[in-house]
Amino acid sequence: MEALVLETKDQLSLRDFPQIDREEETLGPRDVRIRLHTVGICGSDVHYYTHGRIGPFVVNEPMILGHEASGVVIETGPEVTTLKPGDRVCMEPGIPDPNSRATRLGMYNVDPAVRFWATPPVHGILRPTCVHPEAFTYLLPDNVSFAEAAMVEPLAVGVHAATKARIKPGDIALVMGAGPIGLVTAISALAAGCARVYVTDLATPKLDIAAGLSPAITPVNVGSEDVEAIIARDTDGWGADVVFEATGSPRAAAGVFAPLAPGGCVVMIGGQPDPISYDAGAAMVREARVENIFRYAHVFPRCVKMLASGAIDVKPLITRTFDFKDSVRAFEIAASAPAGDVKMQIEMPQ
Amino acid sequence: MEALVLETKDQLSLRDFPQIDREEETLGPRDVRIRLHTVGICGSDVHYYTHGRIGPFVVNEPMILGHEASGVVIETGPEVTTLKPGDRVCMEPGIPDPNSRATRLGMYNVDPAVRFWATPPVHGILRPTCVHPEAFTYLLPDNVSFAEAAMVEPLAVGVHAATKARIKPGDIALVMGAGPIGLVTAISALAAGCARVYVTDLATPKLDIAAGLSPAITPVNVGSEDVEAIIARDTDGWGADVVFEATGSPRAAAGVFAPLAPGGCVVMIGGQPDPISYDAGAAMVREARVENIFRYAHVFPRCVKMLASGAIDVKPLITRTFDFKDSVRAFEIAASAPAGDVKMQIEMPQ
Amino acid sequence: MEALVLETKDQLSLRDFPQIDREEETLGPRDVRIRLHTVGICGSDVHYYTHGRIGPFVVNEPMILGHEASGVVIETGPEVTTLKPGDRVCMEPGIPDPNSRATRLGMYNVDPAVRFWATPPVHGILRPTCVHPEAFTYLLPDNVSFAEAAMVEPLAVGVHAATKARIKPGDIALVMGAGPIGLVTAISALAAGCARVYVTDLATPKLDIAAGLSPAITPVNVGSEDVEAIIARDTDGWGADVVFEATGSPRAAAGVFAPLAPGGCVVMIGGQPDPISYDAGAAMVREARVENIFRYAHVFPRCVKMLASGAIDVKPLITRTFDFKDSVRAFEIAASAPAGDVKMQIEMPQ
Amino acid sequence: MEALVLETKDQLSLRDFPQIDREEETLGPRDVRIRLHTVGICGSDVHYYTHGRIGPFVVNEPMILGHEASGVVIETGPEVTTLKPGDRVCMEPGIPDPNSRATRLGMYNVDPAVRFWATPPVHGILRPTCVHPEAFTYLLPDNVSFAEAAMVEPLAVGVHAATKARIKPGDIALVMGAGPIGLVTAISALAAGCARVYVTDLATPKLDIAAGLSPAITPVNVGSEDVEAIIARDTDGWGADVVFEATGSPRAAAGVFAPLAPGGCVVMIGGQPDPISYDAGAAMVREARVENIFRYAHVFPRCVKMLASGAIDVKPLITRTFDFKDSVRAFEIAASAPAGDVKMQIEMPQ
Repeated sequence: MEALVLETKDQLSLRDFPQIDREEETLGPRDVRIRLHTVGICGSDVHYYTHGRIGPFVVNEPMILGHEASGVVIETGPEVTTLKPGDRVCMEPGIPDPNSRATRLGMYNVDPAVRFWATPPVHGILRPTCVHPEAFTYLLPDNVSFAEAAMVEPLAVGVHAATKARIKPGDIALVMGAGPIGLVTAISALAAGCARVYVTDLATPKLDIAAGLSPAITPVNVGSEDVEAIIARDTDGWGADVVFEATGSPRAAAGVFAPLAPGGCVVMIGGQPDPISYDAGAAMVREARVENIFRYAHVFPRCVKMLASGAIDVKPLITRTFDFKDSVRAFEIAASAPAGDVKMQIEMPQ
Repeated sequence: MEALVLETKDQLSLRDFPQIDREEETLGPRDVRIRLHTVGICGSDVHYYTHGRIGPFVVNEPMILGHEASGVVIETGPEVTTLKPGDRVCMEPGIPDPNSRATRLGMYNVDPAVRFWATPPVHGILRPTCVHPEAFTYLLPDNVSFAEAAMVEPLAVGVHAATKARIKPGDIALVMGAGPIGLVTAISALAAGCARVYVTDLATPKLDIAAGLSPAITPVNVGSEDVEAIIARDTDGWGADVVFEATGSPRAAAGVFAPLAPGGCVVMIGGQPDPISYDAGAAMVREARVENIFRYAHVFPRCVKMLASGAIDVKPLITRTFDFKDSVRAFEIAASAPAGDVKMQIEMPQ
Repeated sequence: MEALVLETKDQLSLRDFPQIDREEETLGPRDVRIRLHTVGICGSDVHYYTHGRIGPFVVNEPMILGHEASGVVIETGPEVTTLKPGDRVCMEPGIPDPNSRATRLGMYNVDPAVRFWATPPVHGILRPTCVHPEAFTYLLPDNVSFAEAAMVEPLAVGVHAATKARIKPGDIALVMGAGPIGLVTAISALAAGCARVYVTDLATPKLDIAAGLSPAITPVNVGSEDVEAIIARDTDGWGADVVFEATGSPRAAAGVFAPLAPGGCVVMIGGQPDPISYDAGAAMVREARVENIFRYAHVFPRCVKMLASGAIDVKPLITRTFDFKDSVRAFEIAASAPAGDVKMQIEMPQ
Repeated sequence: MEALVLETKDQLSLRDFPQIDREEETLGPRDVRIRLHTVGICGSDVHYYTHGRIGPFVVNEPMILGHEASGVVIETGPEVTTLKPGDRVCMEPGIPDPNSRATRLGMYNVDPAVRFWATPPVHGILRPTCVHPEAFTYLLPDNVSFAEAAMVEPLAVGVHAATKARIKPGDIALVMGAGPIGLVTAISALAAGCARVYVTDLATPKLDIAAGLSPAITPVNVGSEDVEAIIARDTDGWGADVVFEATGSPRAAAGVFAPLAPGGCVVMIGGQPDPISYDAGAAMVREARVENIFRYAHVFPRCVKMLASGAIDVKPLITRTFDFKDSVRAFEIAASAPAGDVKMQIEMPQ
């Protein structure tokens, strides 16, 4: 089958990848076979392309990219009960060991045995079909498009972050960073009950996109504005109830407590390759709670329901769509980090 | 000053009420004096009018009605720092003892010493002016009208209920009862993160109003439809994550667990004069959590922020407005419980 | 193999039970085979014996009794990694579907597909050996005896209840009922941080046993003393932070809120075949939280650790021990509910 | 009145301090006057003595030291209802503004307006008498001695930390640091439900004291032993459920996540003058929760109850007692940080 293969750092091919048919496409009793429809390009896909690795995960063998996906069920294993051929679905890219201690406690995302698409040595799904467990494949209502469904994966990060924050209705939040994860976090925070969300960045085009998502989002360019002062002014000096760190920048992360209210919560979302600076004194006088999150757990069906009900709208975040045959070019564009884009997607041949 | 006085059961007068000037209108150092603007009619006001009592609270002396209010600050005590004459405000009707054990623990609503407007022997505010502590008087942003602000009091019940439920983004809720409290609970549950809210009642006009509040609200007439079956069908048999009991009907309250999901939460809002039937077996096999709420605490400023940001819209709930001079008639109409009305309000002379 | 078989209501035999060898004794890859050592007699075992049913679970075929057990591993499946022959263990009697929605969310105890020992049609373990999943078989430290280990199952109910209550250090608790479950709840509540636990009952011998478990337990005979008044006196009128209902008596359960403090928690442990009376008004003015629990989840290893560390001592609760050959007599005695006994155990031939 | 006065850095006098009589000894309606009995020497008292400041708090004027205290009520204001002359009491040293936003939310410890004994410019209580609000003065049961009662203040830090950690029964904890705060945290963690507490330090005498407090405490000398490896071995590689950082050492604080279990909680107790290193990657893969605590709130009465019930025993921590007349020498000894001492106390003349 033809797939988008990262041969090695900086080298992508759209080519036949016969191994996948033999090795990973056996349909188990509780599996479904899916024809892929839409696949989003994630920053991690681009990072593997441009760097050949993310931390300890190194691309030593050619690897198929892609893990944000929707598609159509085309075959079901004999014990599958909730899905049937023709069902439109989206898929959770990480599969844990159902018997691990973390999984049994309900935290399957921190199970070290998770196998995650497009994370070496596991292949991604920029290919015509894949086999996936029924348990991590979610039926789409008619009013959720394949494009929206392929957004569920990044949205899930934002919804998981908002869930961990334990937002109370009427909270004020600050989201640091207006990249794709910052933006899904901002709309998730609003959907979860925030009355206002401040979003910071250094790039004006990103802030313009943020501002366009909701009148309850206030963009703040931290290159020229003092977000701590703005929030202090708007809250009578109290501060933000929740601060989401979604830049991955050590410098930004060092300042998460200054704008935080007493008793407030910081959610660390952005990955940090090295230890960061932590203002323990500022955290202490506020009795801050800090939640560190890793991907997500149990939120895919919640995301689908919120897309269906209109509680969350991800369509403005999908800024460009490519045909699968143009997927190498799509990655080249994505690697150039165009300022006006949030999410690029690839449509597979049907 | 002229006030709407409940002389005794079934007997209302709009008349001078000189006592209030002497007894309760002294401005303390941390108090503000407020000219009332809009006052909502609550079911409890009507109940005092038609029954002369609510449980242990009996109207033995003439009492001024009204506790849902907005107005304008006209004078401030010497230690007031956050408000000034001319400020538009809404007011929390219950004032606790700041040194009680419950208050210090952050639960001032369960302080037995709370003095609450229009709860004997404390007078309400259907009168030209009142004196109130700065700490329970909340500044209104320009885009929140007096009418909306007078809705904050009933809205606060819904927001408090939604807060206690600890809603997760994407939850499914059932609100039993489409009266004013049921409706504010439904919109609060949506604002707090629910993807869908089922609202039940026996009265079609109330359900029509509920349905008009949001496309994410599904009205269910329990006179002709089986809400448990509907929710089971829509959730693959899982059930509602949260059930809010807002009817106050013993029969409805007896059925709160049947539509509830495993690990779900029931919030008891509706008052019940007598013990009700509790299906302990159904609660047990779901490991249900039950939260019993009493009024609200700490949510008025949250409500104001959500009205200002557009997260919650109460305007469709305000179905009729009267001049203060017609307030006796307003109560007569309210006492007839017209099916098409949710909230009636009275505008004070300015 | 010889087993203690409940042939039908009121009729027990110690006899060969050949079916079990064929049907349920196949060792799967992740299973272990266990030689039983000690088995406790539970109230539910006795209830099946004397009534032939518990609610919807009816003994229609001969069934082996017993579900509180410890033993020794004698064989392991090929994929077992944490246990080996000779290991001393205790076992969790309920096995959920690992792929059910409830299990994946971490609430396997509310999975309707749970198969639970000695609950029709699943056999219990009053027999020489059994096969059990590694995942629900827990290694014992040297200083935890087989007798103590066979107490982990009832203890787990108390520890689960104490966990759900979210006890804060220094809390005051009331445990209603001094039967075996009441007593394990009392010692669990103390281990979980309570400064004092009041235990109520009508039977003086049970209260004497309760009092002997810890100087921090205060027994109260509700036949002659007013527990609400006693707690009010000892807490300056505040009440108990947590009330555990462990009687299963509708009359006792109707009074759970009266002794409860504002913001307090009621944990419903005792099973109730019929709906009970719920004082919604008393629950409301306290903003009570009610947790309804069903068996336990994730607490067996916690119990083993607390027995090993000395945080909990169950030895005083084991009041009589029988040889397996005398197990019919043991059940006859248990069915007579002797006042001075808490837990009777049966030792299997080794 | 004669008081222990820190004249300036390094200079202590036991002398008359007439100002205090005039300025701070007026009895308000809800105040009590207390004759001090026992006062503990805290590390912060010693730090003011040896450094003349703690962060922004600088000793610019002579200041009376001492804030860990017990005593006897000798006079009560006219509105005091719960205390009377002769009552034995302990006192919470910080008094918040009852009308501040933080206080009303139940978090009075993070109210910036708190006035705290022996924190410039507020005097401490190493003097014969003081005036204190009834609301922060706690009656002692007969079986709690003045010496134990003067330990409630440091104990409160440990109990607050254990409360914030939300310990579940059977948890495994690591307390980093065997100073007085580490030790009260260790015994608080055990009282709150931990099955085992590992305590680390570099000083063997401190670890010996820790080990003597409970058989459930395992001392680990991190100069020669690898605590992460020890905990991994004892927990099958899972890690500690809770890690308490009580050293205040930046180097120790940088390693809080390595021994932590997935889903575990870190509680930052030790003060840090400068930002510390935070291993965000290690925090992320565990989805760690971090609680930063500041003193305590609402735990004094809980501590008193746990001392009275025997749930916590602080007597082994009181290693030396001085007469008030020897208090300068007591501070000189305390400043030398003798390895075998935990808490030194001063007894006031009665």
